[in-house]
Amino acid sequence: MSQLDYLVKGGLVVDQGVIRRADMAIANGKIVTVAADLAEAAKRTIDARGKYVLPGIIDAHTHPVYLDDLQGTSEAAAHGGITTVIHYAYAKPGTKLMEAINQFRQDGESGSVLDFALHGGLFDPKHQAEEIPMAVAAGVTSFKMFMTYAKLKWMTDDYQLMRTFDIISQAGGMGMVHAENGLATDYLQDKYLQLGRDPKEVFVATRLAVLEAEAVNRAIAIAQVAGCPLYIVHLTASEDVEVVARAREKGYRVFAETCPQYLTLTSEEIFGQGALAKIGPPLRGKQDNQALWKALAGGVIDTIASDHAPKQKTKGDDFFAAAYGSPSTETMFPVVYDAGINGGELSLPRLVQVMCENPARIFGLYPQKGTLQVGSDADIVIVDPALTHTIEQKTQHSHASYTLYEGRTCLGRPILSMQRGEVILEKGTLHTSPGHGKFLRTDTKDGTRGFFAKKKQEQDKY
Amino acid sequence: MSQLDYLVKGGLVVDQGVIRRADMAIANGKIVTVAADLAEAAKRTIDARGKYVLPGIIDAHTHPVYLDDLQGTSEAAAHGGITTVIHYAYAKPGTKLMEAINQFRQDGESGSVLDFALHGGLFDPKHQAEEIPMAVAAGVTSFKMFMTYAKLKWMTDDYQLMRTFDIISQAGGMGMVHAENGLATDYLQDKYLQLGRDPKEVFVATRLAVLEAEAVNRAIAIAQVAGCPLYIVHLTASEDVEVVARAREKGYRVFAETCPQYLTLTSEEIFGQGALAKIGPPLRGKQDNQALWKALAGGVIDTIASDHAPKQKTKGDDFFAAAYGSPSTETMFPVVYDAGINGGELSLPRLVQVMCENPARIFGLYPQKGTLQVGSDADIVIVDPALTHTIEQKTQHSHASYTLYEGRTCLGRPILSMQRGEVILEKGTLHTSPGHGKFLRTDTKDGTRGFFAKKKQEQDKY
Amino acid sequence: MSQLDYLVKGGLVVDQGVIRRADMAIANGKIVTVAADLAEAAKRTIDARGKYVLPGIIDAHTHPVYLDDLQGTSEAAAHGGITTVIHYAYAKPGTKLMEAINQFRQDGESGSVLDFALHGGLFDPKHQAEEIPMAVAAGVTSFKMFMTYAKLKWMTDDYQLMRTFDIISQAGGMGMVHAENGLATDYLQDKYLQLGRDPKEVFVATRLAVLEAEAVNRAIAIAQVAGCPLYIVHLTASEDVEVVARAREKGYRVFAETCPQYLTLTSEEIFGQGALAKIGPPLRGKQDNQALWKALAGGVIDTIASDHAPKQKTKGDDFFAAAYGSPSTETMFPVVYDAGINGGELSLPRLVQVMCENPARIFGLYPQKGTLQVGSDADIVIVDPALTHTIEQKTQHSHASYTLYEGRTCLGRPILSMQRGEVILEKGTLHTSPGHGKFLRTDTKDGTRGFFAKKKQEQDKY
Amino acid sequence: MSQLDYLVKGGLVVDQGVIRRADMAIANGKIVTVAADLAEAAKRTIDARGKYVLPGIIDAHTHPVYLDDLQGTSEAAAHGGITTVIHYAYAKPGTKLMEAINQFRQDGESGSVLDFALHGGLFDPKHQAEEIPMAVAAGVTSFKMFMTYAKLKWMTDDYQLMRTFDIISQAGGMGMVHAENGLATDYLQDKYLQLGRDPKEVFVATRLAVLEAEAVNRAIAIAQVAGCPLYIVHLTASEDVEVVARAREKGYRVFAETCPQYLTLTSEEIFGQGALAKIGPPLRGKQDNQALWKALAGGVIDTIASDHAPKQKTKGDDFFAAAYGSPSTETMFPVVYDAGINGGELSLPRLVQVMCENPARIFGLYPQKGTLQVGSDADIVIVDPALTHTIEQKTQHSHASYTLYEGRTCLGRPILSMQRGEVILEKGTLHTSPGHGKFLRTDTKDGTRGFFAKKKQEQDKY
Repeated sequence: MSQLDYLVKGGLVVDQGVIRRADMAIANGKIVTVAADLAEAAKRTIDARGKYVLPGIIDAHTHPVYLDDLQGTSEAAAHGGITTVIHYAYAKPGTKLMEAINQFRQDGESGSVLDFALHGGLFDPKHQAEEIPMAVAAGVTSFKMFMTYAKLKWMTDDYQLMRTFDIISQAGGMGMVHAENGLATDYLQDKYLQLGRDPKEVFVATRLAVLEAEAVNRAIAIAQVAGCPLYIVHLTASEDVEVVARAREKGYRVFAETCPQYLTLTSEEIFGQGALAKIGPPLRGKQDNQALWKALAGGVIDTIASDHAPKQKTKGDDFFAAAYGSPSTETMFPVVYDAGINGGELSLPRLVQVMCENPARIFGLYPQKGTLQVGSDADIVIVDPALTHTIEQKTQHSHASYTLYEGRTCLGRPILSMQRGEVILEKGTLHTSPGHGKFLRTDTKDGTRGFFAKKKQEQDKY
Repeated sequence: MSQLDYLVKGGLVVDQGVIRRADMAIANGKIVTVAADLAEAAKRTIDARGKYVLPGIIDAHTHPVYLDDLQGTSEAAAHGGITTVIHYAYAKPGTKLMEAINQFRQDGESGSVLDFALHGGLFDPKHQAEEIPMAVAAGVTSFKMFMTYAKLKWMTDDYQLMRTFDIISQAGGMGMVHAENGLATDYLQDKYLQLGRDPKEVFVATRLAVLEAEAVNRAIAIAQVAGCPLYIVHLTASEDVEVVARAREKGYRVFAETCPQYLTLTSEEIFGQGALAKIGPPLRGKQDNQALWKALAGGVIDTIASDHAPKQKTKGDDFFAAAYGSPSTETMFPVVYDAGINGGELSLPRLVQVMCENPARIFGLYPQKGTLQVGSDADIVIVDPALTHTIEQKTQHSHASYTLYEGRTCLGRPILSMQRGEVILEKGTLHTSPGHGKFLRTDTKDGTRGFFAKKKQEQDKY
Repeated sequence: MSQLDYLVKGGLVVDQGVIRRADMAIANGKIVTVAADLAEAAKRTIDARGKYVLPGIIDAHTHPVYLDDLQGTSEAAAHGGITTVIHYAYAKPGTKLMEAINQFRQDGESGSVLDFALHGGLFDPKHQAEEIPMAVAAGVTSFKMFMTYAKLKWMTDDYQLMRTFDIISQAGGMGMVHAENGLATDYLQDKYLQLGRDPKEVFVATRLAVLEAEAVNRAIAIAQVAGCPLYIVHLTASEDVEVVARAREKGYRVFAETCPQYLTLTSEEIFGQGALAKIGPPLRGKQDNQALWKALAGGVIDTIASDHAPKQKTKGDDFFAAAYGSPSTETMFPVVYDAGINGGELSLPRLVQVMCENPARIFGLYPQKGTLQVGSDADIVIVDPALTHTIEQKTQHSHASYTLYEGRTCLGRPILSMQRGEVILEKGTLHTSPGHGKFLRTDTKDGTRGFFAKKKQEQDKY
Repeated sequence: MSQLDYLVKGGLVVDQGVIRRADMAIANGKIVTVAADLAEAAKRTIDARGKYVLPGIIDAHTHPVYLDDLQGTSEAAAHGGITTVIHYAYAKPGTKLMEAINQFRQDGESGSVLDFALHGGLFDPKHQAEEIPMAVAAGVTSFKMFMTYAKLKWMTDDYQLMRTFDIISQAGGMGMVHAENGLATDYLQDKYLQLGRDPKEVFVATRLAVLEAEAVNRAIAIAQVAGCPLYIVHLTASEDVEVVARAREKGYRVFAETCPQYLTLTSEEIFGQGALAKIGPPLRGKQDNQALWKALAGGVIDTIASDHAPKQKTKGDDFFAAAYGSPSTETMFPVVYDAGINGGELSLPRLVQVMCENPARIFGLYPQKGTLQVGSDADIVIVDPALTHTIEQKTQHSHASYTLYEGRTCLGRPILSMQRGEVILEKGTLHTSPGHGKFLRTDTKDGTRGFFAKKKQEQDKY
């Protein structure tokens, strides 16, 4: 064997549901050996003593369209220990899905500092859904629709939802939804605003968890009729968890995601920070935080992703005019690690499952990504569990001028990450350049099948 | 006390959850005594030995708009042992709700042979919902919308559903829905018809139980947001029962109805009888029959009503052009008695609860109707449990030229019924005349509250 | 075909889970036809119009050893509409099991007015269990032990319970237990009596439902280890029901019985009637009555039997010196019919299952007994649902000088019964004589297997 | 403030359900500060960077009576990172409980290298139970009985169990049981041995999980009647977990313990290692291992303890003559840490709850022991999560000549521990001497009350 590129020595390797003390040899972008006490020569030996060595984090939910473009999003993500990003390639009404996919892919291939894949985003499935088979052939196999935001003309009605899931199912893809009952919400919003109530109160009072859980239930029902696997993004509430758990018991192919903000923040932020904390679905209560942690530990929720979408600060109090979204990808791992591991909510192997292994399996990137097996891409992140840092906007790398975690001190931080065998982050500095990232084809057919076989065991375990 | 009008001697009186052997004295249209061995003089003494004496049956779901008008519907119902009917007063698009209510009331007061109340039916709640407070003031307090039939322009979308439930709730009324996901169904129907499949197969394959249960779940969610009590008409499937049971566990004010056809027939009828067996939601499977019986026995379903809506026979095979509905009110009691009591599915006191007491309580007619207490209207039906008869269209009183139960032999039949102390049915002959029936104001505020207090005990019991 | 002996005309026949209007032809002791409108000639035609025709009731739990001997017990039972009795043939310590069985069989063959079978009763299984294979060969296949009454030397400890279940299992028999934790009870009793408390209070305070349910759980565990089917006699409490339901869910072959007294009386009787109401396990609360009815309706409890054991009145207040037991076989059917059918707790077909079909199936007497099929013994009971009578000791036929139901008025009463095609009870008079009854061999191997196949459907039904 | 004795710098402190990076100042045997970046002078500063700092481990289940006496047990425990031991002070038949307690206390005060408390052990509660109030007054408040081992004359029958729980309850103590149905087991053993089967097979085939769960259920029932809190030692099987979970749902005060061997070994050891792996209850299957981990994570099992009881190797194959027990206290923490934390079964904060906080709370030692709060005893253990070692008998400190974990490599090991502010273990060497340990009074009244309040939150959490 030729000389190694890297030898990661003495770390605690977390992978495949276990922690072990192992050295890791890397050459030609791949993991070549994982074993105790490797003594081979390497161009560089990294001392990982006292550190955890994890598969590179996968952020399967980003929107590179507001303040952070695809390059900016990838840079912010890379600073957070992430090595693979799956962006939403949204096709605006009146545009073609393949145009959007091609554009995002091109932007990524020229600008991304990280390997990336794409979800298709359908604002107008009535006119865009027929392109789905083409998208699948092009390596984009998951397609998201909104069940809300009728006022923005983003909402997909149940006719098109049924139709699009049917097309996706035929094409071998996976459906995705932002699940909130948009029309019921709109009535409530119209009514309360007309009554002159405070917009922040109106926002919280109209995006109800019961209407989110309703939409989750509806999407599952319709997807099951179509025989379409379904991935539900950003669950926020205990009501949602109940619906997903029931669907799982029935053997439905349903996957669920939550985000750091729903695990650690509450609607108090909306009243404190105003439109900056306007995200959809909204932040909820402490009990919901707890329910989501339990659902992650117990296997009902499969993944954590960021929903990174930093927007411009809007002037004044025009809460409803403000965009949705917040910067989240760079803070994701430290915030989740601190609240989850230090807070005793999850075991570290389970954290790795929901942030690395599961997104890779669900979207068919496994075992190239999401694991530290011999032959996998050498995408790794080294975490110092004892390193404390305080999140401040001024040291964040998003182009956003704020963070919802301002002043939060987190214990545990990525200190080094590699992509395909090259160090891309070390001590807070990026060593990668735009265009370094490669486009990854997703595959939702076999990946998810394998995932379900795995799920059974996991559920026995947790 | 003045002389009695009637003395019903020797019967087995079924009321308030028990059977007892008692005589019943009737004067001035009211029940004046219920006791063992009454020896008072009466103008007429009715020998009820070997017979069950029940409160008059209430049919809370009829559509007097097709072949049977309000008078015809009431006559058919009266022949079936029913003494109170609640008709749907539907306001067509472009018409006023109060016009419909006034018209149906007028038709009833001039033509009904039975006491009657009305539900408001909203084809176009966007323009009709503002009349709801007026309707409530006029004694019509329950309002139904369709969650399906978009092609017929009958469908209410979730915005209007949310809004209308809100208005109903404020007015002290009760919401009602026909729960099926109309848009998802329409997509499936368009697709399958385009593929040239047999219309009957298409009908069955597109009105799926999972899409009905979805709509039930959605209606409950939206009604709960509005704080609106909800009555779900004609449940058909085990999937529905699961949804309602969960809502009950959460303490939601949700009521559920099923119909004789969903308890005793299956989708085989559609293939055998074609468009005559086209009802909405459709007939389902034997397992659903069983699930509905269990839900009635266990307290999840509250009422049985007929959904009487006999339509014209259509020529040829134009299944989708045919109207929905079937004649059902006259056959309801014998069919349910035979399958439920003789089939061992329900106890007789429970049958009386779901066909008499519960509809009276839910719609605020209790204790005037639905029970045999002293002071209640003398609405009674005497049932001979040993009398067999075979259902044939030619001896039915609907104007329909068919019955879905042709040739079915039922054991147990009403042989005499009274309304307000007058014999209106005896040995198959009506002794009442159009205009005899009185309009009854419903009241869904206190009635349902009392009902829920009662529910608790019932659930302990069953 | 030769002339019929009997034609039962016009009745409502309750059998196999349904009620139908049918005539029944009887010849040579067997049912030969069941059909509508039989017009064949018969020596006697019985008018059953307005009446229910049931399989003869089976009382599977009697103790013909106190005031009523085997003849007396059978006479009292016959007056209650029972046609088959299964007596406990108890072998006292120091005696042989086969001696007891032979003696009881001989007493029955000479004195019983009804067909009868026997359970073996083991006071001293350590010395008696080896006779079990002989007993099985002799047609006695079920064997009861006490888990309580150590002070009376009746208690079987867990060593002998394990051993005896093992022997029973090998022999193809069925285990039975009186389940109460005797030793824990004894400690409590010793303590409270020493404190000088009122014996009635002590009795109630020491025979706790939680200690009964414990013993039920223990018997089930030990029987399962032995692979021995288990029949638990006289369940009394909601705690028991929970244990049995759990065992059923696990697929254990466990059968459960309750008695009229546990369904309709409470511990108030003990304080009111003193030692006369001393039965073991004791009468409990109203909530337990309700739980037992629900368990019967829902399929958790399989049978109702009387535990008939009328004892002498003891003088004075010596509550603890008094024997256990009460007269119950004659009142069983009317009391259960009134509370169960008139009270709306059970459907009539379910009542027939738990009082006729199930005991016949469990003990292998089916379809000779327990059903009204062509070829079955013509054991029938005709019930007038409208006949009221008031239970009074002076008109009862037990030799007991009391009844726990004194003054209770019941609606619904057997008016005629037949055994093997001969009228044995008519209008309160017996037409049978000692020795008329035949010994029946039980069979707990195949019968129970068939029963379990049936159970599945039943559970789907209720 | 006077100068500090110790400053523990840079560690990850695990306590109260969370991990934080904190320094810890220790003076006069107590924790005086826990805060980030303490800069005070101390006699010695311990570098805990890359290490976890935990409350000293509490081993609440040891038997210092075989090869390891109290001193030897405490030394083995200390080598395993344990700082507090609760020994069983067993009173042999014919001896006084207080004699045993006084002897064990004296042995401990003269020989223990660790702080210690005592459980009372009753071989003959009939004659020993009356001393329980004295024992409680002397600071020994928990009392264990055997529900098995009748052949050894150790078994307590249900009369004495009921009586003793009653006495314990009155005295404010806590009951404890070794739960197996001894008599049923004895029958099976007698039978199978007589049939000449292999003793190891017989052992496994007669100590059935269903008979253990039965005894757990029985002990809970009897304790509840007495109103006595109950601690069930060494649960082994999924069947047990189900019973305890049900009792918890009912609000019973029941605590449950398991041991490292039941979490990580199976009955394969018995066939491989023979009598050395003979422990009671026996090792079971992999599914049981998993069920116990889940029960620990989910809050059904409260504690892990060692059941340390190393016995002499017996010659030859005399399996049944061999004593029960195995050495376990020294290996406990590394084995559980490796399988639990590295295996992803538990979060580290939960591990600290079940090995430190919960035993301290249940036995009333909290917050003196079991936590790292200011004012608590400075009992700490520093764990290096990356230190691997292989368990071998020759490097263990028990007097046993074997370990069931021979050759098992564990990742994660205690490297330093302190008791009351003095380093007692460092790099594998003890720095403490016999008699250093102090006797601790337990208190099961208030401690458990506080525990239950805490439980609620925990259950919300997991």
